[in-house]
Amino acid sequence: MIERISILGTGLLGASVGLALRAAGFKDEITGWNRSAEGGETALKMGAIDSLAADPVAAARASQIVVIAVPIYATIDLMERLAPVLGPDQLATDVGSTKRIIAEAAARLYNTEGKAAFLPGHPMAGKERGGADLGDADLFRGAVWIFTDDARAVRSAAATELIQEWREWVVAVGSRIRDLDPARHDELVAWVSHLPQFTATALSAILEEEVGAAPELKDVGGRALREMTRLGSSPFSMWRDIAHTNTEAVEKTLLALEQRLALIRENLRTPELRNQFEQANKFRRE
Amino acid sequence: MIERISILGTGLLGASVGLALRAAGFKDEITGWNRSAEGGETALKMGAIDSLAADPVAAARASQIVVIAVPIYATIDLMERLAPVLGPDQLATDVGSTKRIIAEAAARLYNTEGKAAFLPGHPMAGKERGGADLGDADLFRGAVWIFTDDARAVRSAAATELIQEWREWVVAVGSRIRDLDPARHDELVAWVSHLPQFTATALSAILEEEVGAAPELKDVGGRALREMTRLGSSPFSMWRDIAHTNTEAVEKTLLALEQRLALIRENLRTPELRNQFEQANKFRRE
Repeated sequence: MIERISILGTGLLGASVGLALRAAGFKDEITGWNRSAEGGETALKMGAIDSLAADPVAAARASQIVVIAVPIYATIDLMERLAPVLGPDQLATDVGSTKRIIAEAAARLYNTEGKAAFLPGHPMAGKERGGADLGDADLFRGAVWIFTDDARAVRSAAATELIQEWREWVVAVGSRIRDLDPARHDELVAWVSHLPQFTATALSAILEEEVGAAPELKDVGGRALREMTRLGSSPFSMWRDIAHTNTEAVEKTLLALEQRLALIRENLRTPELRNQFEQANKFRRE
Repeated sequence: MIERISILGTGLLGASVGLALRAAGFKDEITGWNRSAEGGETALKMGAIDSLAADPVAAARASQIVVIAVPIYATIDLMERLAPVLGPDQLATDVGSTKRIIAEAAARLYNTEGKAAFLPGHPMAGKERGGADLGDADLFRGAVWIFTDDARAVRSAAATELIQEWREWVVAVGSRIRDLDPARHDELVAWVSHLPQFTATALSAILEEEVGAAPELKDVGGRALREMTRLGSSPFSMWRDIAHTNTEAVEKTLLALEQRLALIRENLRTPELRNQFEQANKFRRE
């Protein structure tokens, strides 16, 4: 049924989607569009896309499935631009890191009589830097790919079938699907994804102040330090929209970590420290 | 000059020292001792040691170099037991994670006229779990191995030569040596090693509370979560002595991280968030 998929945004995630689809045996056309021509050309050269479109709207209009792979606010912009030109037998989906704002836009602009279908999605995969050149056919292997679909959506038989096909491709590229409510998604990823990122950013930022000026001491830390600060490389551009669209949930997790660090600090010489280690051990046990 | 090295404590670090010395071409005898017979037998089977001694004091007495590889307080105990039986032509060294308390014991019990030499050492290498079975000939490859020697030490020519030989073996197993003052060492490792550990413990402990009861959600987190919580597996037994012997320095680093997390929390929607990401990026740049 699919003749063409378009990938709007051929950065790390978009390029990886194209490469992963190819590796999983997708034979039809993949058209790409990217805001900067350079990223698009890279994706084209890597074989992540077959052709590079100049206009995202035209590329989407000619596709059965439109994969939007740009930051959150840019996703909303594209959703608004595409809604009037896509028909009820077309499916748009995204890969954004927060889902409440996307699900709201989907309910407003899609998923009603005569409108195209929209399936909010979020593959739990990434790297600490973006860019098509880091695109990786195996990026989604072993990852959870979350969908936050709307039970009230009104869809054509063709759109329903496209959703089924897209879910099968997500499994084919090696991911396990979880269906969640958008609010629950945002709360959950605040804990398991956003908190780890902001923690690594905070840790890296204070270490830069404390030992950054002494390069002969920066290499003293071992694997533990490298791991705990790897995400310190993440660019602000990848996280700004997440901080803006999941603020309350992230605030809650940061406050919880501040309080837990204070508890540990106040108990470095008391038996409570053992309890904290044992609870941490439990999280890692299985 | 070395005929025998004894390794007192054949856990992860002790067994790895034996394996690494062998891999680097050390041909003479390595005797081991371990508090639990089981760990000693494992080290023996792995070829980390040639023979297993029943008594650490007897093993040390018959060696030119004594490597103490047990937790901090147990190291102090062994230093006290060995000081009266070792002579001025013997060298003892350790691999403990804090150095002020060890350096004080070394000044008190060793490094004076007629006493054995003691060289406080700390290889910046480890794993999130201990045990001889995890011993690894490559554990020290690429790691920094810190020494906090005492400029006032009084030593025989033979002991001075043993120190030189031991430093050469440390380089031979793949480490880069840094010489630091013990107080500066403890302050520095509080930032680059102890803070990352306590952060991972705090993060894992709160995640256990928040998502631990929902196993279907624990696998939602990707590589970032796994990395940021790997050290959550570290057992309390490996960290208790560190928390006790470097309390003030660790308190200072924990408080700094709490304040930095609060700053990020209060600025999720302001331009200050960009500054924090950029400072973190700088730490990771080289």
